[in-house]
Amino acid sequence: MKKYTEITIYDIAEKLNLATSTISRALKDHRSISEKTIKKVKKTAFEMGYQPNNLAASLRNKQTKTIGVLLPTVTQPFLSSLISGIEITAKKAGYTVMIMQSHDSYDEEVNLAQSLYNNRVSGIICSLAMETQDTSHFQIFINNNTPLVFVDRVPKNFNTYRVVIDNFSAGYKATKHLIDQGCKRIAHLSVGSEFGNLYSERKKGYLEALKDHNIDIDEQLIVRLTTVTYDEAEKGTNKLLDLKNPPDGIFTPGDILGVSALQCAKKRGIKVPEELAIIGFNNDPISEIIDPNLSTITHPAEKMGQAAAKIIIKNLKSLKKDDIKEITFLNTEVLVRESSKKK
Amino acid sequence: MKKYTEITIYDIAEKLNLATSTISRALKDHRSISEKTIKKVKKTAFEMGYQPNNLAASLRNKQTKTIGVLLPTVTQPFLSSLISGIEITAKKAGYTVMIMQSHDSYDEEVNLAQSLYNNRVSGIICSLAMETQDTSHFQIFINNNTPLVFVDRVPKNFNTYRVVIDNFSAGYKATKHLIDQGCKRIAHLSVGSEFGNLYSERKKGYLEALKDHNIDIDEQLIVRLTTVTYDEAEKGTNKLLDLKNPPDGIFTPGDILGVSALQCAKKRGIKVPEELAIIGFNNDPISEIIDPNLSTITHPAEKMGQAAAKIIIKNLKSLKKDDIKEITFLNTEVLVRESSKKK
Repeated sequence: MKKYTEITIYDIAEKLNLATSTISRALKDHRSISEKTIKKVKKTAFEMGYQPNNLAASLRNKQTKTIGVLLPTVTQPFLSSLISGIEITAKKAGYTVMIMQSHDSYDEEVNLAQSLYNNRVSGIICSLAMETQDTSHFQIFINNNTPLVFVDRVPKNFNTYRVVIDNFSAGYKATKHLIDQGCKRIAHLSVGSEFGNLYSERKKGYLEALKDHNIDIDEQLIVRLTTVTYDEAEKGTNKLLDLKNPPDGIFTPGDILGVSALQCAKKRGIKVPEELAIIGFNNDPISEIIDPNLSTITHPAEKMGQAAAKIIIKNLKSLKKDDIKEITFLNTEVLVRESSKKK
Repeated sequence: MKKYTEITIYDIAEKLNLATSTISRALKDHRSISEKTIKKVKKTAFEMGYQPNNLAASLRNKQTKTIGVLLPTVTQPFLSSLISGIEITAKKAGYTVMIMQSHDSYDEEVNLAQSLYNNRVSGIICSLAMETQDTSHFQIFINNNTPLVFVDRVPKNFNTYRVVIDNFSAGYKATKHLIDQGCKRIAHLSVGSEFGNLYSERKKGYLEALKDHNIDIDEQLIVRLTTVTYDEAEKGTNKLLDLKNPPDGIFTPGDILGVSALQCAKKRGIKVPEELAIIGFNNDPISEIIDPNLSTITHPAEKMGQAAAKIIIKNLKSLKKDDIKEITFLNTEVLVRESSKKK
């Protein structure tokens, strides 16, 4: 492999017929240099293959100007909106965002966290893998004062920043909506381990809403899924609809699950919402496409991403630590569509 | 900010009561050390905050063990399958994948390419932003022998590796399918600039299929969109359906466009496929959810990702350059569903 051509500021100075001090200042956005010159110098520097020796600079500064984002997947619409929020805020502050996917695997998450650490990212924003029960692989970021923010799927006990929605109240709202529509036997597809905050809180909201409205909890109506997939939700829904006394409503803690339940009911000739009312969660684009449209819970994913990135940048700019460790977005809303509208 | 704690192999040796030479070898996966010990040493090293000084090593080696993936977006199902393919191959070879989004902006693409270059990634896989007309910002990778592979949206003239599908034949197949179903007036939503390969080739395939079947080309039936969005496709479809002599078939070069066309027709009370047959492109999950289901063109996104990553790794491992610059996947298929099945 050919060696890197070592382009120096002297080469750029010669090419542009400018003083080396001008080049050096322009590359550092010095206020004494005009914007026009800065632009010209940077363009030429890049075209010539000048490397500002970021790595050496990083080695001195012990960080790169990069925010690492470690998520279960980039495909879930909620998470891609979250990424957009992070990018908007990061870009304004001059940070680049690099995204990595754990695919809900604990081992992969450990591996990628290590890779992010070894690359000395400026900060890390993480939503936990479904498998993750132990978060000690993140302790190293805390030990070394690398800002770490958990979003959405956050650990219950870990002393760092968290950006979440109030999943309990959202689960409560979704269930109450079905009760308000006249449903008497409301099922729930519950997801994942009890370790994370997210699905367990939504389930608690479901249980609490039933309790508050004097509806007995029927364990047969709570089906546990291990993954958030269309196929698992289909099996779960079939199990529910096979019951002697099937449900007249289902609250699924995700839209893909709700869409699956809806399609499953349609296949079996069950009328939605008349015989079975369904409400999902997240307001994914698919919820609007499906016929009948899926009622859902909206939440501010992009704003959550912005909030998470702001915490990172605030921490990097000041040495003062913030006392507020958790930001909880309260503005989740029931979005009533055809799949649950009985009244 | 607190200084990084400089943990050395001596600290790890002391903690584990092992020789420093054992630690050093274990960290390098030396064959003389048992797998069990390697695992234990690495775990302890990581937990203690040992940094293998990747940056210093990178500085010497002039690269990190990272493949940078620069895409218009991560949300498009085709692109997320492509990423999966890249990750599978990269992981096997011990590379980490970092993803960056250009959001179809030329400026952003230039900025991110520069960031990837400054971080000295081992290789880069890129699908071009819709806005991009000039790809000189990638020349620097070529100049410095950093393997660069374009996938899917590739520049027409740029001397590097390309992994694509045969968009012309795919466009031809889609159009021929509509002709075979008895359509006489087939419209096309064409997308983007003529710079890239992708949409212009699909359009050429459409035109060629009409020509081969003695169907006159009616320019009124070709609507150009500037972005691949639901809203633009809706406007485009409305324009087509407002014609005095509206189409009886539409080929859209993307499923989100096909879904939009389908919903638009449904809103206007036009029967699909009886009055209007529609075929999309990509086999996105949404094409199966929509009612009636959308006929589409399948293509091997994951395999394309694997192929692209293999090129990068092959280039990194050997100094010998490959003569084959373009891999064209031929196995696109018409997937007939309800939206076009008239016979």
